[in-house]
Amino acid sequence: MSIFSEVGPIKYEGPDSTNPLAYKVYDKDRVVLGKKLGDWLRLTVAYWHSFSSFGSDMFGGGTWNRPWSGKVTQEQAEARADAAFDFFTRLGTPYFAFHDADVIADASSLPEHIDNLKKMEDIFAKKMSQTGVKLLWGTANAFSHPRYAAGAATNPDPEVFAYAAGQVRAIMETTHRLGGENYVLWGGREGYDTLLNTDLKAELAHFGRFLNMVVEHKHKIGFKGTILIEPKPFEPTKHQYDRDTATVFGFLQKNGLEKEVKVNIEVNHATLANLDFEHEVEMAYALGIMGSLDINRGDPRSGWDTDQFPNNAQDLSVAFLPILENGGLGTGGCNFDAKLRRQSVDVNDLYIAHVAGIDTLARAVISAEAMIKDKRLADAKAARYAGWSTPFGKDIMEGKYSLADLADVALKKNLNPKPVSGKQELLESVVAQCQKIS
Amino acid sequence: MSIFSEVGPIKYEGPDSTNPLAYKVYDKDRVVLGKKLGDWLRLTVAYWHSFSSFGSDMFGGGTWNRPWSGKVTQEQAEARADAAFDFFTRLGTPYFAFHDADVIADASSLPEHIDNLKKMEDIFAKKMSQTGVKLLWGTANAFSHPRYAAGAATNPDPEVFAYAAGQVRAIMETTHRLGGENYVLWGGREGYDTLLNTDLKAELAHFGRFLNMVVEHKHKIGFKGTILIEPKPFEPTKHQYDRDTATVFGFLQKNGLEKEVKVNIEVNHATLANLDFEHEVEMAYALGIMGSLDINRGDPRSGWDTDQFPNNAQDLSVAFLPILENGGLGTGGCNFDAKLRRQSVDVNDLYIAHVAGIDTLARAVISAEAMIKDKRLADAKAARYAGWSTPFGKDIMEGKYSLADLADVALKKNLNPKPVSGKQELLESVVAQCQKIS
Amino acid sequence: MSIFSEVGPIKYEGPDSTNPLAYKVYDKDRVVLGKKLGDWLRLTVAYWHSFSSFGSDMFGGGTWNRPWSGKVTQEQAEARADAAFDFFTRLGTPYFAFHDADVIADASSLPEHIDNLKKMEDIFAKKMSQTGVKLLWGTANAFSHPRYAAGAATNPDPEVFAYAAGQVRAIMETTHRLGGENYVLWGGREGYDTLLNTDLKAELAHFGRFLNMVVEHKHKIGFKGTILIEPKPFEPTKHQYDRDTATVFGFLQKNGLEKEVKVNIEVNHATLANLDFEHEVEMAYALGIMGSLDINRGDPRSGWDTDQFPNNAQDLSVAFLPILENGGLGTGGCNFDAKLRRQSVDVNDLYIAHVAGIDTLARAVISAEAMIKDKRLADAKAARYAGWSTPFGKDIMEGKYSLADLADVALKKNLNPKPVSGKQELLESVVAQCQKIS
Amino acid sequence: MSIFSEVGPIKYEGPDSTNPLAYKVYDKDRVVLGKKLGDWLRLTVAYWHSFSSFGSDMFGGGTWNRPWSGKVTQEQAEARADAAFDFFTRLGTPYFAFHDADVIADASSLPEHIDNLKKMEDIFAKKMSQTGVKLLWGTANAFSHPRYAAGAATNPDPEVFAYAAGQVRAIMETTHRLGGENYVLWGGREGYDTLLNTDLKAELAHFGRFLNMVVEHKHKIGFKGTILIEPKPFEPTKHQYDRDTATVFGFLQKNGLEKEVKVNIEVNHATLANLDFEHEVEMAYALGIMGSLDINRGDPRSGWDTDQFPNNAQDLSVAFLPILENGGLGTGGCNFDAKLRRQSVDVNDLYIAHVAGIDTLARAVISAEAMIKDKRLADAKAARYAGWSTPFGKDIMEGKYSLADLADVALKKNLNPKPVSGKQELLESVVAQCQKIS
Ligand SMILES: [Co+2]
Ligand SMILES: [Co+2]
Ligand SMILES: [Co+2]
Ligand SMILES: [Co+2]
Ligand SMILES: [Co+2]
Ligand SMILES: [Co+2]
Ligand SMILES: [Co+2]
Ligand SMILES: [Co+2]
Repeated sequence: MSIFSEVGPIKYEGPDSTNPLAYKVYDKDRVVLGKKLGDWLRLTVAYWHSFSSFGSDMFGGGTWNRPWSGKVTQEQAEARADAAFDFFTRLGTPYFAFHDADVIADASSLPEHIDNLKKMEDIFAKKMSQTGVKLLWGTANAFSHPRYAAGAATNPDPEVFAYAAGQVRAIMETTHRLGGENYVLWGGREGYDTLLNTDLKAELAHFGRFLNMVVEHKHKIGFKGTILIEPKPFEPTKHQYDRDTATVFGFLQKNGLEKEVKVNIEVNHATLANLDFEHEVEMAYALGIMGSLDINRGDPRSGWDTDQFPNNAQDLSVAFLPILENGGLGTGGCNFDAKLRRQSVDVNDLYIAHVAGIDTLARAVISAEAMIKDKRLADAKAARYAGWSTPFGKDIMEGKYSLADLADVALKKNLNPKPVSGKQELLESVVAQCQKIS
Repeated sequence: MSIFSEVGPIKYEGPDSTNPLAYKVYDKDRVVLGKKLGDWLRLTVAYWHSFSSFGSDMFGGGTWNRPWSGKVTQEQAEARADAAFDFFTRLGTPYFAFHDADVIADASSLPEHIDNLKKMEDIFAKKMSQTGVKLLWGTANAFSHPRYAAGAATNPDPEVFAYAAGQVRAIMETTHRLGGENYVLWGGREGYDTLLNTDLKAELAHFGRFLNMVVEHKHKIGFKGTILIEPKPFEPTKHQYDRDTATVFGFLQKNGLEKEVKVNIEVNHATLANLDFEHEVEMAYALGIMGSLDINRGDPRSGWDTDQFPNNAQDLSVAFLPILENGGLGTGGCNFDAKLRRQSVDVNDLYIAHVAGIDTLARAVISAEAMIKDKRLADAKAARYAGWSTPFGKDIMEGKYSLADLADVALKKNLNPKPVSGKQELLESVVAQCQKIS
Repeated sequence: MSIFSEVGPIKYEGPDSTNPLAYKVYDKDRVVLGKKLGDWLRLTVAYWHSFSSFGSDMFGGGTWNRPWSGKVTQEQAEARADAAFDFFTRLGTPYFAFHDADVIADASSLPEHIDNLKKMEDIFAKKMSQTGVKLLWGTANAFSHPRYAAGAATNPDPEVFAYAAGQVRAIMETTHRLGGENYVLWGGREGYDTLLNTDLKAELAHFGRFLNMVVEHKHKIGFKGTILIEPKPFEPTKHQYDRDTATVFGFLQKNGLEKEVKVNIEVNHATLANLDFEHEVEMAYALGIMGSLDINRGDPRSGWDTDQFPNNAQDLSVAFLPILENGGLGTGGCNFDAKLRRQSVDVNDLYIAHVAGIDTLARAVISAEAMIKDKRLADAKAARYAGWSTPFGKDIMEGKYSLADLADVALKKNLNPKPVSGKQELLESVVAQCQKIS
Repeated sequence: MSIFSEVGPIKYEGPDSTNPLAYKVYDKDRVVLGKKLGDWLRLTVAYWHSFSSFGSDMFGGGTWNRPWSGKVTQEQAEARADAAFDFFTRLGTPYFAFHDADVIADASSLPEHIDNLKKMEDIFAKKMSQTGVKLLWGTANAFSHPRYAAGAATNPDPEVFAYAAGQVRAIMETTHRLGGENYVLWGGREGYDTLLNTDLKAELAHFGRFLNMVVEHKHKIGFKGTILIEPKPFEPTKHQYDRDTATVFGFLQKNGLEKEVKVNIEVNHATLANLDFEHEVEMAYALGIMGSLDINRGDPRSGWDTDQFPNNAQDLSVAFLPILENGGLGTGGCNFDAKLRRQSVDVNDLYIAHVAGIDTLARAVISAEAMIKDKRLADAKAARYAGWSTPFGKDIMEGKYSLADLADVALKKNLNPKPVSGKQELLESVVAQCQKIS
């Protein structure tokens, strides 16, 4: 029994239901392109926003009544875990994700932190076994405590680096023992507030060393999951090194890790970086580092991470198109890194928000399937690039022409290529038409 | 004689002069940290904004009276070149930079384009010899003509790729023969307007092949200058692949070119990418790809490339700090990729704007020198990172600790590092105090 | 016969049609809340983007082949008018809108401008009578010509103010004679590029005087249409005085015009002002100045006016909710101030884009109808504000309490009101669910 | 004795001092245009950021050690007041400003809140008398407590409105008794998070009624200070009604309050609204509602209110130009609504930051004086608008021409006005040159 026990289990009731506590679109067994909808989405509830936050913002305190707010004792940590697993099972989602700090009793030293983590690991192991809920990923919170004010792996003080190593090793091993399918690093304060006190080159080198240590440790302990970096351009820092997917890729290459580490792309982080979410997804596939997704949305008028629940399926559908084309998310999933609005003070708002978000994702996947079946998008793209499949196009890419050779061809053939319509409005209308749900 | 003949030569008159057509700060022979101010700055006038544009914007036509506007004949192209060199020498700046399309008579085919370019090359060679004005860099305009509407190297049509090769080879060779110190690629439409019609992975591969061809050609013809990419995040496209320095670095590594190609950083492109200009400069040095600078500024309220002349020396001074610390710009320089406001219709506005911009740069360099002599910034940074020069810090970076080793150290020593003041406000006040010019 | 004659008339073929040249949603006779869909939308084609632009941008020239590009003769102006009316009738939309400069032959003096306008007025009158196409609004282009570089009504030179008066009077009278239902002022350069050369207070006063003259003239000539201001925050200027609806309202009040002038709200102008389109619509209704709509969308990553065709009906549906609740747009309509992408070079792209945009609007209206019929949104709002319909709430608003009185009530009753859930996620899910089209 | 007792009093040591705890520019008795620098600036320390905040952000807890953190008892509130006045006197600034909630012991009901406020009022009265420190303004925090989650005056629940009345009346009267020179309203949550649950028109009406009650109460109690609204566009809400100066002016007119209420302009709020600070200042003077200033700066890359200490005098100098031209701030002052960076954990950082900020303001005022004495800016503006002082210009503004009359003039005189250079680059260079401090 918990504060979440009055609701659920949430069921699929179909598109005409007006029950806010029922799925209208998300029928997890619905087959989409040969795979179940639930298996495409691998839905995940995030512990931090849903159980370890209370609705505060920079201008006011918490508004949500949760019995375990304030300083967290072991007893409260356990009550919170009870409530979380109660919620997971009633919502019917298969995965959860957490930071060490979200789940443990408050600790005042590294040894105590590790002890408290071990206690919760044991409890989680038991609950996971009982409920079948699985761990998508674990991560370390190495940004909230004052010791991390100037970063963890990029801290000017190597003792902080070492402390972070102690914390990360513990949660990596916990994640491994709990069967976690990924391990995530979000560099909350791995960046700077001012260049005036920052040795950029040194910090990037330290950061690279830390990430290499993480990868080495993964192999040492036999963890088979994926190591993921979660890009974000700024906030809380003025500048965060893991700015976006392309930047992370450059960093991985520089440190020899582009085969070892992938990205966890968050919708709202993409838009804060002034990139479309679908851009980040396409770029990650193009670079071979697609890992997992943090699902939410930002408010298009707000300049910070609002982490709202998604509600516009059309916007998301164009990101699910490459996901479906590439066969899915692998070890990744769709993690609701989304928080209730501060005014959403009813206990059932947490269900309502997740249900609505899940239905939005389900719509997006079904619309992406419609786009694929429709074929007009794929056909247009194939036709547009057809020249690169001709002998001439292939020869260029196989290096058979130097710049001078190719210049000679252009001159000799007196090439005068004409612009061809990009058909943007037509293709956009196909996307819009594919939003019909049946 | 040209429309610019009524003014100049511009002289240094010192800080109390109120003559808008005199330098108040830029004394090119002033010694700054052992090198002449003029040698730090390597000032460059951009042909396009200053001679080949007319003040039009998306909502109205040209306002500046230049005798060579409209369709450009060879005669007009030569009159324009006369005026340009008249301006360069009267302004007293040592370099210029140009796109092929800025300088030649209009052409309707690739052969005609190349012929027209050769004609102007001959004229430039003569004028450069007569005046001593040098070429900082040449570049190809592969974005204005309708054939490039969908990109040049990233065009879906390989014939456009080949046409671009013809154009680039010609201007590279012209740049080489004119003693240009760099060759620049700005990927104006190397990006996309919509992902719906774009094969991102293929376009990135084509782009990489093109850049490799350029580098191979450089070596083949014996060009000793630097190949530079100029990052910009968007505009005219929705997304441009060369988004910023870190993104370009990832792309270079992916294509094996990180030792061959550097960046030409533009102030306004940095801020459009939501990055401080000084960030881009520091990042380029950290990654070893600092090349050259396009000097201008954006309006902080406008979301497009306004290319205004700089006027706030303090803002620029923090970017010149690493430039001075690193010994200068190498083959690069300070190119005024800056345009008059549409209302600046007087002929002498072009002088006034350059003079003001040059004085702003001069102030920035002198302020950066003051920061270096002051030592407080460097001392604070050294103290902040001192831990990484201890045996413990060095051992970490030399790989002597695994994650588990380091975790053990943290536990055994019961590390509990405390936050140390970042002194941001203090350091900012040092910068402000160093703005005094004497 | 025109370049647009190969297509059309465009017909309604229903939701399963894959014909890009047919309406899938827009059945103009479909009844929505007792009124025909066509009568809610009052669809309008904009002359400027569709017939008087050629696909140029700041980095390249025109790409669309239109026979009347370049300097426009009277013959070309007439050919363009033929093509425009051919397009209107084949598309099947009831209204058009134009600036004087879009439609006339090029003129080099005010008298010639007025003559040329009169010629086109006569031609339009005849075509409107033949086709039944009506004029939603006319407007003056007082921003493109160099004389308006520093504004029209806010120009520092009163002769420019007078010239603008000459131009505006002519097009107002033409609009009146053609039965135009509104007259629009968009203050393209009514603002500033730098405060350093601007007398803000004087310019606002001049602008107020001009607007009063326009309103006086309207009454004098017996024009019964609505005078509309179109807000935009910037571009081409750094700052435009008519920034958004609330700012315009303040300006109207200051000049005694809040009963005389309404707003023409453009989607992309709202988002450039960092306001949701639906905010601007709701604000205009709240202030009593809702006039008409310019329908398009911006790219969320671009910082300038991209004027794209709309394609996300859900985004628009929340703006159509208040429109339906308030009984419609009055003399206003939905004007496609939207332009093809530069790469959309096929003649039929203009049809495809309008058809897709119109279907998007139709979806939005039908979804808004669904929200109204669903009642959950309206019920939630009524319940949330119920306190203001109690005697206590009414007394407050009727002025029966002073601050001290009310403070005394709070103290005596020891009021301790609790937060109530705002149900944001629930209401957003209702919007999403109401997007089903049947 | 307090944690701030080790420093001070801060003295003026002149431009060459490198003592971070001394003024280098701010000599309060320096005469600027006939008035003392201290009297132009009326420097004010803000209680909230400096004494009632602890360095937390959305991603981590407090870092600054202040003895009165956590739940605040009366004893702690008094210790905090001791420390605050210790700081004010050692810094040497003449004014402070506070919210009720910043200064009082925590209270759990309105009566207790009022009692606690009265206790602190008595303490403040005594300290003010002892030290000579004066109150620039008081204000109510009606946004932090959960009861205000949906706003105060714009709350859907009239009981919250009444509670806010109780709170505001108390702090207004305290402000009055303490000799406060202004009373400020910042509508932290007077706005909305989603339009879906918002009755915009009703909320604006409630807000207008509340403001009228405040003004009526001011007159009733004989408060002679100025009532100020502080504009901000968003944060914490998605949209705040008091968006910017022009919007507030429209709201004041609508409620008949444009002669009764002025604005308190914050630098960072202006830039969040995408307006230059100098624009807001000029607009406030143009509309007759210039009140007071909250001095700080935002980071140009961050999309939220960073409230940093100012450090670029040139940026501020263009806002002080109209302030000097208009004779100063009246009852207003320069309030440091600025907070330390989270890493600035040394106690003396609070002094360093204020000293640097004050010197920045002093530089800005002295530079503005230089611009006025230089005369080039004023002369250029006078020349530019000279036409409006001719009989023709005056007649237009005196209403002697109708639109038709003026059109006739334009035709008869065959007016053909030419664009005149706006001289933007020249004027910007004058501003830059006037930054010399001597
Ligand atoms: Co996330
Ligand atoms: Co987030
Ligand atoms: Co550039
Ligand atoms: Co630029
Ligand atoms: Co418009
Ligand atoms: Co627009
Ligand atoms: Co403030
Ligand atoms: Co602020």
